[in-house]
Amino acid sequence: MGLKIRELVPRDRDDAREALVTCGAFTDEEVRVALEVLDAGLEGGLHGDYALFGAEIDGKVRGYVCVGKTPLTLSTWHLYWICVHPAVQGTGVGRALQSRAEAFVSGCGGERVVLEASGLPGAARARRFYEDAGYTEVGRVPHFYRPDDDCIVYCKVLA
Amino acid sequence: MGLKIRELVPRDRDDAREALVTCGAFTDEEVRVALEVLDAGLEGGLHGDYALFGAEIDGKVRGYVCVGKTPLTLSTWHLYWICVHPAVQGTGVGRALQSRAEAFVSGCGGERVVLEASGLPGAARARRFYEDAGYTEVGRVPHFYRPDDDCIVYCKVLA
Repeated sequence: MGLKIRELVPRDRDDAREALVTCGAFTDEEVRVALEVLDAGLEGGLHGDYALFGAEIDGKVRGYVCVGKTPLTLSTWHLYWICVHPAVQGTGVGRALQSRAEAFVSGCGGERVVLEASGLPGAARARRFYEDAGYTEVGRVPHFYRPDDDCIVYCKVLA
Repeated sequence: MGLKIRELVPRDRDDAREALVTCGAFTDEEVRVALEVLDAGLEGGLHGDYALFGAEIDGKVRGYVCVGKTPLTLSTWHLYWICVHPAVQGTGVGRALQSRAEAFVSGCGGERVVLEASGLPGAARARRFYEDAGYTEVGRVPHFYRPDDDCIVYCKVLA
């Protein structure tokens, strides 16, 4: 398969939405918020509040990542979401997206990336994904999302 | 002095702005963002995204607090800012605002309040204020705001 990581553009919206909805990582409310952010990012472009990169495979976007500069900070960015369509999960698409997003952040002068993840057992795969990529737990808010669903705060200092 | 904690309304904007600018806790950029949030909160009212309470003393608002429900959570709220005009600092105005904000959150079904504070020595007074009010450190992102200025994440579980 030919994998190309590139800027996500408005014509990718339906593919991006499909990856988001089917990837299995998000609740309905999270999908709703993510679609609002997706639209804001598509409108604002790479240098707006939300930068979006998509993973194109055989002409179709099968996943994307969203990052943005953290307000009121000098060089901190947030990684908001990565989603990968189930048809191509486990093939390195997520890793390629994360890597491209971090390179973009570095290129913009960003020095660290912060992200938040659920502490639920069902989110263990996502947490492992970030831990393997060098993200370190720097905080944990008990019952943040709902009872027994902690918010784990991760940070990675970019090289 | 007669202290009254009440909903902040549009005619309080100039007084609120004065408290924000003169209180000494915020950078210019933080003031700019806080004014945007202030305007959004004044427009949306107590049940919009940002709830605002002001401290009225002798007919003039001398400080205010801003809280809001945390998106994508069931019962978590954020405390975004408390500011108190220097003319009345040290008189319990901040404590009264924090207490009223927490009562409001509880009344809305909120179960915990999260806030972020700077780790700089100059912010020690603010951190002490929150710690004395029952906020516990649950995370720390090194160099978050700028070099050597960590973000300390606090959480308080409401009774």
